[in-house]
Amino acid sequence: MKFKIKKSIFTKKLIDTERAISSKTTIPVLTGIKISAEDTTLTLTGSNADISIETLTNNVEIIEEGTIVLPARFFIEIIKKLPEEDILISINENLQASIESGSTKFSINGLDPNTYPTLPIVDTKNGFVINGKKLKDIIDTTVIATSKQESRPILTGIHFIINNQKLIAVSTDSHRLSQVEETGENLVDKLYDVVIPGRAMLELSRMIDEKEDINVSISENQVLFIFKETKFYSRLLEGMYPDTTHLIPEESTTHLLIDGPTLLSSIDRASLLSHAGRNNVVKLSISDINSNVVLSSNSPDVGLVEESLNFDSIVGEDIEISFNPDYLRDALRVLGQGKINLGFTTPLRPFTLKNEDNGKQIVELITPIRTY
Amino acid sequence: MKFKIKKSIFTKKLIDTERAISSKTTIPVLTGIKISAEDTTLTLTGSNADISIETLTNNVEIIEEGTIVLPARFFIEIIKKLPEEDILISINENLQASIESGSTKFSINGLDPNTYPTLPIVDTKNGFVINGKKLKDIIDTTVIATSKQESRPILTGIHFIINNQKLIAVSTDSHRLSQVEETGENLVDKLYDVVIPGRAMLELSRMIDEKEDINVSISENQVLFIFKETKFYSRLLEGMYPDTTHLIPEESTTHLLIDGPTLLSSIDRASLLSHAGRNNVVKLSISDINSNVVLSSNSPDVGLVEESLNFDSIVGEDIEISFNPDYLRDALRVLGQGKINLGFTTPLRPFTLKNEDNGKQIVELITPIRTY
Repeated sequence: MKFKIKKSIFTKKLIDTERAISSKTTIPVLTGIKISAEDTTLTLTGSNADISIETLTNNVEIIEEGTIVLPARFFIEIIKKLPEEDILISINENLQASIESGSTKFSINGLDPNTYPTLPIVDTKNGFVINGKKLKDIIDTTVIATSKQESRPILTGIHFIINNQKLIAVSTDSHRLSQVEETGENLVDKLYDVVIPGRAMLELSRMIDEKEDINVSISENQVLFIFKETKFYSRLLEGMYPDTTHLIPEESTTHLLIDGPTLLSSIDRASLLSHAGRNNVVKLSISDINSNVVLSSNSPDVGLVEESLNFDSIVGEDIEISFNPDYLRDALRVLGQGKINLGFTTPLRPFTLKNEDNGKQIVELITPIRTY
Repeated sequence: MKFKIKKSIFTKKLIDTERAISSKTTIPVLTGIKISAEDTTLTLTGSNADISIETLTNNVEIIEEGTIVLPARFFIEIIKKLPEEDILISINENLQASIESGSTKFSINGLDPNTYPTLPIVDTKNGFVINGKKLKDIIDTTVIATSKQESRPILTGIHFIINNQKLIAVSTDSHRLSQVEETGENLVDKLYDVVIPGRAMLELSRMIDEKEDINVSISENQVLFIFKETKFYSRLLEGMYPDTTHLIPEESTTHLLIDGPTLLSSIDRASLLSHAGRNNVVKLSISDINSNVVLSSNSPDVGLVEESLNFDSIVGEDIEISFNPDYLRDALRVLGQGKINLGFTTPLRPFTLKNEDNGKQIVELITPIRTY
């Protein structure tokens, strides 16, 4: 194998592929990046147990075809630090890669490409297309509530249900829930019901260019996202996702309309105190009669904080409710800049946050903490 | 105690004082920041075993005098996140501090200020003045070669000798040495010979405004730097600093003149390979006869790198010398943008780097590694 390539182009492709590569894998060859030169195309592949990324470029001059696996992190560091834009890479029969640029010449040991696992096969005939920004928003909204614990693996994923021109994405770690619903989409009519690992979706979200369309194909145990010169594979999580539809309360007895950023900066302050204390709990007290909203936290060993908030309206019964401020902070970040509708029933039943904005519908659900 | 202060002014003063405060201290009261309101002045004090910082401001409205110690990191986080620029702080008889800003009110537990250690007493009558930028450069140049190990505590310091209108600062961890010499300074004629902990000097360097003059006073076991509204105390290290004057070779048999940044980027590349291998060694081969300079590194388990360098001149005998590239990188960073003079004698004797620039004289010394 022998090819000439520009440093800037190669670096970008390598960084994209590196997202799938973990240095903590138990399969040594997966710490490497697979490089194939064939015809006029250079293909880079990275993979771990969950995701695989394949990216290609034709901005390359292939002098001799071939394939090699090189230690990913080390190789990429070398490429980044080469002195000139022009790079010549060649492989000898001992699986050694020579990397030349300017008067610099590296020679590094490679691995046998025949030991590299083959990528999953996903039929792309029945795929559908989704806008990059839309997919990124869906991922960023739902990934916050995926479980970080492996005790119930299915909860580490995002549950996607696509049916009848409607897409619902939902996640829950059993303490909170985050859901997006998009309707009127140019989606396929076919029913899809899949659970994709949250970590894989987070990596995908970081790679997506908001302006481009993404082609999505789903097979029995894999999902494939294709955009530009990149293929992003993720395995699907096996098993039934719990039914979340009945978790979201249909009615509320207290409604608070408030500016999202105002509530967020107040939560940031209150959580300074709750984090310093033992329990990480803050209390929201809403009084329709006195027309006030007070956020407070009290940790006798550290101190207390109390703050009355500006709001737009309160309708309904007075309530005092305690919860983990980190959950509310995550939810408010997802809901963004506008006005937020909070709905409460009782101090021990989950409460909801919904965005006033039209278009897509976001529902955030938080389970309160019993403090007495 | 009760005072009103602006958030922006208070935050800056708190951050300056926090530099002296460690959360890892064994003396609980030292995790706190001492705040004293007296007459028209607010004084903040932070301290650990090595350094103490006292900073004051008159941009404050003191309503009631008093003193308190508050948990430093927590208190500073709170101040930073307060909603309004106007802050009112008051202490009650139970050592609780109330912090009010806008509609936010924190109440946090303080510590008894009577348990806070008193600052050292340093006579400032015989102090001298040094320019901020000059002091910062001296510190930044020498701190790189201070030892990070506590096995020989004296080597963790920077050795300052001030005598006869000349200042010499030198440090060595016994593998390398870094020295600055400034002459013709408006310094006192009195002899000073002190060793100041490198870590204290690094904190000082980060606080110094290059444009201002610094007043330096030295007592038997403390040094005090005064600038603007800040006093910075450091203890001196006890014991004799080793004699370093004979370490710097007076003659060299090979002289290389080369552009500093060129050599630095080459070292950055070569150390990618040496860091991946077991020994972290690179080799510099200088040939006056063939008129070439080659930097290389070889780790059989990883690979090898070789690079011929552009240089200005070689004078003297051919030499091959091996060393830790991290030492050369640190030295080159200190020497900056200009041309560098390297001087070698034999492959096992230390080599020197000197800056072509006039004004101050910098000498960097690196001990080679035996590779055969």
